[in-house]
Amino acid sequence: MHGYSGDKQAYLTRLRRIEGQIRGLQRMVDEEAYCIDILTQVSAATRALQAVALGLLEDHIAHCVADAVKSGGPEADEKVKEASAAIARLVRS
Amino acid sequence: MHGYSGDKQAYLTRLRRIEGQIRGLQRMVDEEAYCIDILTQVSAATRALQAVALGLLEDHIAHCVADAVKSGGPEADEKVKEASAAIARLVRS
Amino acid sequence: MHGYSGDKQAYLTRLRRIEGQIRGLQRMVDEEAYCIDILTQVSAATRALQAVALGLLEDHIAHCVADAVKSGGPEADEKVKEASAAIARLVRS
Amino acid sequence: MHGYSGDKQAYLTRLRRIEGQIRGLQRMVDEEAYCIDILTQVSAATRALQAVALGLLEDHIAHCVADAVKSGGPEADEKVKEASAAIARLVRS
Repeated sequence: MHGYSGDKQAYLTRLRRIEGQIRGLQRMVDEEAYCIDILTQVSAATRALQAVALGLLEDHIAHCVADAVKSGGPEADEKVKEASAAIARLVRS
Repeated sequence: MHGYSGDKQAYLTRLRRIEGQIRGLQRMVDEEAYCIDILTQVSAATRALQAVALGLLEDHIAHCVADAVKSGGPEADEKVKEASAAIARLVRS
Repeated sequence: MHGYSGDKQAYLTRLRRIEGQIRGLQRMVDEEAYCIDILTQVSAATRALQAVALGLLEDHIAHCVADAVKSGGPEADEKVKEASAAIARLVRS
Repeated sequence: MHGYSGDKQAYLTRLRRIEGQIRGLQRMVDEEAYCIDILTQVSAATRALQAVALGLLEDHIAHCVADAVKSGGPEADEKVKEASAAIARLVRS
């Protein structure tokens, strides 16, 4: 069980929509759409992916990190460090 | 003809790989993989999308914007503004 | 007392260095330095600011959010939501 | 003469305002303000820096890159590559 398990179907639906956006991008490149229109769609897909990441992260802090903090011990510190590293990767990507 | 037309196959290959990454994410969510591992893959897909965008943008400046600049007139200003707006969307997404 | 209180001096030192970077940018603009060199310095200052934010966020989760989680109740949910909103602002800025 | 020279005073004013934001951040840390409030101000300063960068970049493309493109030759390619590398640094920072 993970933080996002309760929303699994919602995350799958969002990821399928993003898959559709990526296939739409392939169609645009294949039909030689205007570069700027392709870039607009790339920005939209990037933002959709980031929204999924932010949702997963909130669920993760609310469940996995919170559970580790309640149990205490070195596991708690580890989970905070691990979540912080994931946040850093997101901010820098 | 657009800036990226010569590299069309390379862009399609990259976008198909990103589509595979998104399907991999769906599998991970479906099999209830660990949240942090999913986030790492989301960051990788985001960076891959950004790399596609940066490539398209360079091709666009080198061809469409450059051609408009050589022709001169209001079209040149317009193309620079349009490219700048696309850059801003990328930086902010 | 906040999560970062123990590292207050270190954060002040980093912020003073960033202030120096911003003054350096003013000097570059004033002396009409090459645009690309200015942009390189802007990227460096932006990354330094983000590193400060990521440090503050890790301290915040390790202390304020963790304390709220241990106390339980609606305050815990609130702190997680508040931290998630701050992460979203960082990722999107 | 650079692309931004005509707007030099406006850029200096914006950078001085950002310097003020960074000094405000030092005051907040010194007075032990709430972490989330500091993070909100860091996001605002980051966005202000990015806006300066986007402005400089548009001026740079409209002038330095455009002039090189009109002159033609290897310098034109070089300027496009250099601008693209600066855009990539911005997108990734």
